[in-house]
Amino acid sequence: MTANILGKVFLVGAGPGDPDLLTLKGKRCLEAADVILYDQLVNGELLEFAHADAELMYVGKRAGKHCVEQMDIEALLIQKAREGKIVAVFAGGDPFVFGRGGEEAEALSAMGIPYEIVPGVSSAIAAPASAGIPVTHRSCSSSLAIVTGHKAHSGCPEVKWRDLARSVDTIVILMGLHNLRQIMNQLLEGGCEPGRPVALIHAGTRLFQRTLVGTVATIADLVEVAGFKSPTVIVVGEVVNFRSRLQWCESIIRDDTLVARREALEATPWAHCV
Amino acid sequence: MTANILGKVFLVGAGPGDPDLLTLKGKRCLEAADVILYDQLVNGELLEFAHADAELMYVGKRAGKHCVEQMDIEALLIQKAREGKIVAVFAGGDPFVFGRGGEEAEALSAMGIPYEIVPGVSSAIAAPASAGIPVTHRSCSSSLAIVTGHKAHSGCPEVKWRDLARSVDTIVILMGLHNLRQIMNQLLEGGCEPGRPVALIHAGTRLFQRTLVGTVATIADLVEVAGFKSPTVIVVGEVVNFRSRLQWCESIIRDDTLVARREALEATPWAHCV
Repeated sequence: MTANILGKVFLVGAGPGDPDLLTLKGKRCLEAADVILYDQLVNGELLEFAHADAELMYVGKRAGKHCVEQMDIEALLIQKAREGKIVAVFAGGDPFVFGRGGEEAEALSAMGIPYEIVPGVSSAIAAPASAGIPVTHRSCSSSLAIVTGHKAHSGCPEVKWRDLARSVDTIVILMGLHNLRQIMNQLLEGGCEPGRPVALIHAGTRLFQRTLVGTVATIADLVEVAGFKSPTVIVVGEVVNFRSRLQWCESIIRDDTLVARREALEATPWAHCV
Repeated sequence: MTANILGKVFLVGAGPGDPDLLTLKGKRCLEAADVILYDQLVNGELLEFAHADAELMYVGKRAGKHCVEQMDIEALLIQKAREGKIVAVFAGGDPFVFGRGGEEAEALSAMGIPYEIVPGVSSAIAAPASAGIPVTHRSCSSSLAIVTGHKAHSGCPEVKWRDLARSVDTIVILMGLHNLRQIMNQLLEGGCEPGRPVALIHAGTRLFQRTLVGTVATIADLVEVAGFKSPTVIVVGEVVNFRSRLQWCESIIRDDTLVARREALEATPWAHCV
């Protein structure tokens, strides 16, 4: 086998959910790919960019579990590339922010398969923005931590919640809904003010986005009443207070040029923001 | 004055530098805008998307200083929107990650001017990716901090370097080149291992990207020899070690569909990566 019959794999960030937040390069990857792997965080509308003959493969979660094991995904990427195919792996957000991009890149690199990383807009930043929350702000946040709320796998370092409580101004937690109460308790134990504001943003940037605001002390009780589901981005910090002033997603939209496609896609784009 | 004669302002993230990493919505904003404000971090190639009659205004830095004061920018946005114009403010990366997006949104909101935030791909994530460094990885990084290396302005919280040293696995520092030695010293004082890897990435994702690797103890000396300039993203953490295996930007590119435009733009796209 020689190098020039190899295909290529693109590990592509699909962005936070709004299909308009895909990158130009991400779109070209979708258009060019012979094989597209995607997970549950990818907006299905994006798959409309795929060409008619492209092979679409769902490799996300079913009933909370990965329907294809990571090692099988990596083997599949290698196999398809060796068949000379252009393969796009589409994952929500950015492939290197709590995605499996690092592991996939390692596997491809080890086998000599050409690949590229195509960064995406991270939901850690865009979901709060879409709820009127800037993750940094000159007046109150010079530091931002982005952490996983998943319990650590073996070999994976634990998040130091108690240390985080005092060391950064804004904490964004991905995949933390299930462990919300425990996380908030650990932040309190670490010296976090009980009244520090917290926002949960479900499906940020999408039509059915919902936001819930409370504090480190109250949010776990509030979410039980509100009944949130994944994917939810959690923001802890004073920046949450900007939401009362910056609910831009509910502001009037009148730019027809920009809105036309949106309207066709989802009626009133931000009407469902809470 | 009634609402329906108002224009609208889009605060748009231009992405990390590679024009292909602009979002679809960002491109439409550029195409639709009557007035485009941009700073020194925006790749000038993006301005080619502007329509022929658009008014282009540089509001970035000249000789290290902002050539237009922030309050004057905000007044300009309000004035242009009141003239019924569509205004796009293009800033490098994401408007809410150490940009001025929060302040601009507040000013617009206070004056009742419609606006939208258009998130962008942050250089804090994409520049390391482009140098073969995933900012998180299941084996060694569950937590990522993104902080500013600028000295704090009055009213702005200080970055707690000593606390950060032990509380997160990966630290990404934006705008930190000038204070590099001082920052590394503070991390060491906070208990950071002197041998912890550090990478500097200049102009990440662009043709003239350069990367320099050292440790917390050595990087300040190394950079004096290498002579780096801004914009440079600094990454501190074990994830830097992946670079030796994941230098994808130097891998063979053979997908003509994806590469054609790139080649026209910049000959061999990643050939200049160090």
